[in-house]
Amino acid sequence: MNRTALICLLALGLLAPPLAAQEDMAEEKTVEKRLQALEEAMAGEKEETKSSDWDFKWSNGFKLSSADGQFKLKFGGRIQNDYAFYSADDELEAVVGSLGEGTEFRRARLFFEGELYDRVEFKAQYDFGGGDADFKDVYLGLTDLPVIGGVRVGHFKEPFSLEEQTSSKYLTFMERALPIEAFSPGRNTGIMVHRGEERYTWAAGLFRDADDFGNAADANEINLTGRITGLPWYSEDGSRLLHLGLSVSDREPTDDSVRFRSRPESHLAPRFVNTDHFAGDGVTLVDLESALVYGPFSAQAEYIQADVDSLDGTDPSFDSFYVYGSYFLTGEHRPYKNKSGAFDRLKPRRVLGEGSGAWEVAVRYSTLDLTDASITGGELDDVTLALNWYPYSNVRWMLNYVMADLDGAGEADSVQMRFQIDF
Amino acid sequence: MNRTALICLLALGLLAPPLAAQEDMAEEKTVEKRLQALEEAMAGEKEETKSSDWDFKWSNGFKLSSADGQFKLKFGGRIQNDYAFYSADDELEAVVGSLGEGTEFRRARLFFEGELYDRVEFKAQYDFGGGDADFKDVYLGLTDLPVIGGVRVGHFKEPFSLEEQTSSKYLTFMERALPIEAFSPGRNTGIMVHRGEERYTWAAGLFRDADDFGNAADANEINLTGRITGLPWYSEDGSRLLHLGLSVSDREPTDDSVRFRSRPESHLAPRFVNTDHFAGDGVTLVDLESALVYGPFSAQAEYIQADVDSLDGTDPSFDSFYVYGSYFLTGEHRPYKNKSGAFDRLKPRRVLGEGSGAWEVAVRYSTLDLTDASITGGELDDVTLALNWYPYSNVRWMLNYVMADLDGAGEADSVQMRFQIDF
Amino acid sequence: MNRTALICLLALGLLAPPLAAQEDMAEEKTVEKRLQALEEAMAGEKEETKSSDWDFKWSNGFKLSSADGQFKLKFGGRIQNDYAFYSADDELEAVVGSLGEGTEFRRARLFFEGELYDRVEFKAQYDFGGGDADFKDVYLGLTDLPVIGGVRVGHFKEPFSLEEQTSSKYLTFMERALPIEAFSPGRNTGIMVHRGEERYTWAAGLFRDADDFGNAADANEINLTGRITGLPWYSEDGSRLLHLGLSVSDREPTDDSVRFRSRPESHLAPRFVNTDHFAGDGVTLVDLESALVYGPFSAQAEYIQADVDSLDGTDPSFDSFYVYGSYFLTGEHRPYKNKSGAFDRLKPRRVLGEGSGAWEVAVRYSTLDLTDASITGGELDDVTLALNWYPYSNVRWMLNYVMADLDGAGEADSVQMRFQIDF
Repeated sequence: MNRTALICLLALGLLAPPLAAQEDMAEEKTVEKRLQALEEAMAGEKEETKSSDWDFKWSNGFKLSSADGQFKLKFGGRIQNDYAFYSADDELEAVVGSLGEGTEFRRARLFFEGELYDRVEFKAQYDFGGGDADFKDVYLGLTDLPVIGGVRVGHFKEPFSLEEQTSSKYLTFMERALPIEAFSPGRNTGIMVHRGEERYTWAAGLFRDADDFGNAADANEINLTGRITGLPWYSEDGSRLLHLGLSVSDREPTDDSVRFRSRPESHLAPRFVNTDHFAGDGVTLVDLESALVYGPFSAQAEYIQADVDSLDGTDPSFDSFYVYGSYFLTGEHRPYKNKSGAFDRLKPRRVLGEGSGAWEVAVRYSTLDLTDASITGGELDDVTLALNWYPYSNVRWMLNYVMADLDGAGEADSVQMRFQIDF
Repeated sequence: MNRTALICLLALGLLAPPLAAQEDMAEEKTVEKRLQALEEAMAGEKEETKSSDWDFKWSNGFKLSSADGQFKLKFGGRIQNDYAFYSADDELEAVVGSLGEGTEFRRARLFFEGELYDRVEFKAQYDFGGGDADFKDVYLGLTDLPVIGGVRVGHFKEPFSLEEQTSSKYLTFMERALPIEAFSPGRNTGIMVHRGEERYTWAAGLFRDADDFGNAADANEINLTGRITGLPWYSEDGSRLLHLGLSVSDREPTDDSVRFRSRPESHLAPRFVNTDHFAGDGVTLVDLESALVYGPFSAQAEYIQADVDSLDGTDPSFDSFYVYGSYFLTGEHRPYKNKSGAFDRLKPRRVLGEGSGAWEVAVRYSTLDLTDASITGGELDDVTLALNWYPYSNVRWMLNYVMADLDGAGEADSVQMRFQIDF
Repeated sequence: MNRTALICLLALGLLAPPLAAQEDMAEEKTVEKRLQALEEAMAGEKEETKSSDWDFKWSNGFKLSSADGQFKLKFGGRIQNDYAFYSADDELEAVVGSLGEGTEFRRARLFFEGELYDRVEFKAQYDFGGGDADFKDVYLGLTDLPVIGGVRVGHFKEPFSLEEQTSSKYLTFMERALPIEAFSPGRNTGIMVHRGEERYTWAAGLFRDADDFGNAADANEINLTGRITGLPWYSEDGSRLLHLGLSVSDREPTDDSVRFRSRPESHLAPRFVNTDHFAGDGVTLVDLESALVYGPFSAQAEYIQADVDSLDGTDPSFDSFYVYGSYFLTGEHRPYKNKSGAFDRLKPRRVLGEGSGAWEVAVRYSTLDLTDASITGGELDDVTLALNWYPYSNVRWMLNYVMADLDGAGEADSVQMRFQIDF
């Protein structure tokens, strides 16, 4: 090996790395290009994702939300199809009318609702049962205001009664209890301030008595209604709690005309008790609410008293209450919606397929006395046995056996069931 | 070149590769980082995709589905705007009333429907035509049950008649034929089991006669209706098939009151034949169905007989049938929905823009005799010529020329057209 | 250092690069694999994105669009909840009836609309105010046709009046002015061709007088209505413009019965002027439109004349006009929708939170004289002061103070406000 060769070898040795590096660079270029391509594509993805930074899904309602959480929108509806079968004393039917079998769509609703800009809320909900578009929740409002919490304007439930504030989707029995049907103002058109926290809620509003479509023309009367609730006892997971509440309403009857009435907790039956219209220029309603959840067992009771300033000066006073117990055979507990001070949607532990869904049994006693002073509206006592099956959290089959006893007239039994879905 | 220099050179030669490698490593690090960044981003993408694993699109309806196929939801509606022009014999108008020009929204519907958990189905469909919310399909049910297939509760079509089971969106003519309008029970409220397979379907249900809103209070009567259909001949692509079907219905008229009547296959015209109410405590309906698809040509015919147990013992029996042929000038064939035993949505081979859409011509003969025993409801014969244009699968323009002949009274001609879209 | 050692060193020097390269290759393989994995994943993403190439979001309406821009769909609604308080002369109330306080849902609408295949348009919009489903825009049509622009069939606004063509969501005052309420045909069922460009629009259509649900049975009369508008002066950003327009309508009253009437720009009040029905077989309406936008200031005026061919030959002629000015305290300008020749949605410069939303003040004078020839419908003059707050582009609070003067009867004042949201 001569020096020249050696130098050549050395030169090669020196050149080798740059040459190899050059090859590397060529490869590196490919990698570089591909990385760039990927990074650009990913950036494009990101931008696209940004431009459509909205999440849409169905989860007991069609739900759309923005990634930043500022916008939450939802739409959907519910269907309740009822079937009822009656057996009644002839004396009773002579008083209240005949009770035939029947079927009806108890509720058939569609709704759109949303929370916008983290600050605005709205809801538009209509019930097509019976063929007209009854206005249910139709309102707009501001949320998260200091002190008052939220302010709402439009047509919605006056803040009165635990059973009333609980959605008809989540009721334990097919119908609300006698005191609620007879006295609770339900939905009207007005303005309300309301605040809901973990352990308490309060709400107060001014309302006009409105027709089924939220309208009240040529109406000067104003009703003032307020509600306060609290949870003196509450376990973290909500499986044990005690709810106490007080609702009051000071009402100016339209045209000084007062009437209270009720069906026997069976909507396909006629009204069993009825004061008919009588003259009065003021009504005061007081409702004491209580509910206990203790694991799968729960109990609930409300007492409502209605004092009337009647024009004839006799000032009748009516009272009523209900009490019920419920037990989930499959171990669930009744869920409570803290911010509303009301009960919420049940989620079966094991839905149909995984298991048999959730099964609940319940019994209720209700009593309503619409006879006082010169008013003879009648006195009604109801005992209801209930069996509820929840195959999924949005599907329910309810079976109720109602025994109604109209004082001085006789008894009527109803076997009724409901097929329910909300979507 | 001395040894020292040589060694230096060698040392450089030896160092070069590691140095180059170091540079490589530096670059490699960049690549590494970038790859990691990309991989993380991609993983994030995947997770995001997972968290919103829902597909939403419009395809003749707003459609939402979950990636696992367990949830399929859809909402949308239809609009049918009709225009009719009449020319009638004076003698006929003296009998049935005057026939003026007119326009109407024949159907104006919105719906929400879904299949949930691979096991639950629901639909909420309302027709706002005329201003009230007529209940159309409003039901819930379970699907894919062993043997019985599915069970459905609520308001929907009784399983009767091929033409009735075919959606009004897909009818060949603007109105269903005389036998269907006069005798088919349409939608009512009840419960049904139903199974649909590739080559056959059957369904049977119990129904209460319900009002337009699905309700039937104080109603003890029950109707039993069943249907069975099959495809004795069926080509894979559905372009050739023979449908045979039998529908029967055993009915208890509400309040023992029976009435059959029909317009002349023109909805803006008055009813030409009408038995008026008469006393009967039972009706039996039998419907023989047949349809043939042979490429662009199709034919369809049904024969319906109604036997009444009238209280006067004369037991009248009415019968009627229709037969029609249709031909697609643009080569399509009428699509058949195997699981329903009915016809389905036409998809033009070439939509407007690509081509001229689909064009169909058709002719129908219908006859209905409502005169028998002591009942003189009249006898009506209709011949209808039809031209349909489908620019897209969800848009349709229909032109019908109806020649109606009321036995013993005279003739009336109608030129009517429909603008239709479903979304 | 001997030669052997040297050669060994050299050999190492020569081998080093390939060895390093080999290591590189090993690493390169990993990079290669990872790149491939990423590229495949990205391709998968792309395909997935393709399969669901739809963008869904909420932006003053639920909006769905396809990536290729061929499909644009939207659904949502609006709520307007009004409260009114009145003070009126006794003499006036003796003539028009009592004016009580009240609340109502002025509008409560849901809609679905879309543009399909870049060629088809449809809209289905219903107003549930009052409980029935009033048909608003319910139509289908073709767009982007040569020369004529678009053709539309169904129920929609006849092309008449600037104030009428402007959506009720965007009106400056709670109610449209007296001339519009008394004479504008509003929505009817028919067919229209229409074209809208940057600087001009024109439209012409044939319509049947339809009921609230778009229907007109036994109606042979046809109305012909047309409108042409232009922007002789228009700045690029729309902040300065002059709109001029002419609308005409040649009408055949149904059953030769004519009636014009109007409330005092307050919807909870009774109608103050009313010609009652009188016999006439033709009406010609002419409307001169004008509007000026000059930054935050805008002005608008319309003059409408109605000439009647009365059957008694007296041929009364009524005229009316309104003029108003509006000013945005927060600096916005009224936005104009060029393709419609009407005003559009206001977007506050700084929404609530960022700022205080947009604030607008306005004043309007309207006059309507329904007394001429043998007709004594009355003469009404209105002055309205308005304050509008737009916290967001889809939320609005309106306060109107209306002073109405019914000639020869007296005055009535109304304080009224509206809470509005559209979604």
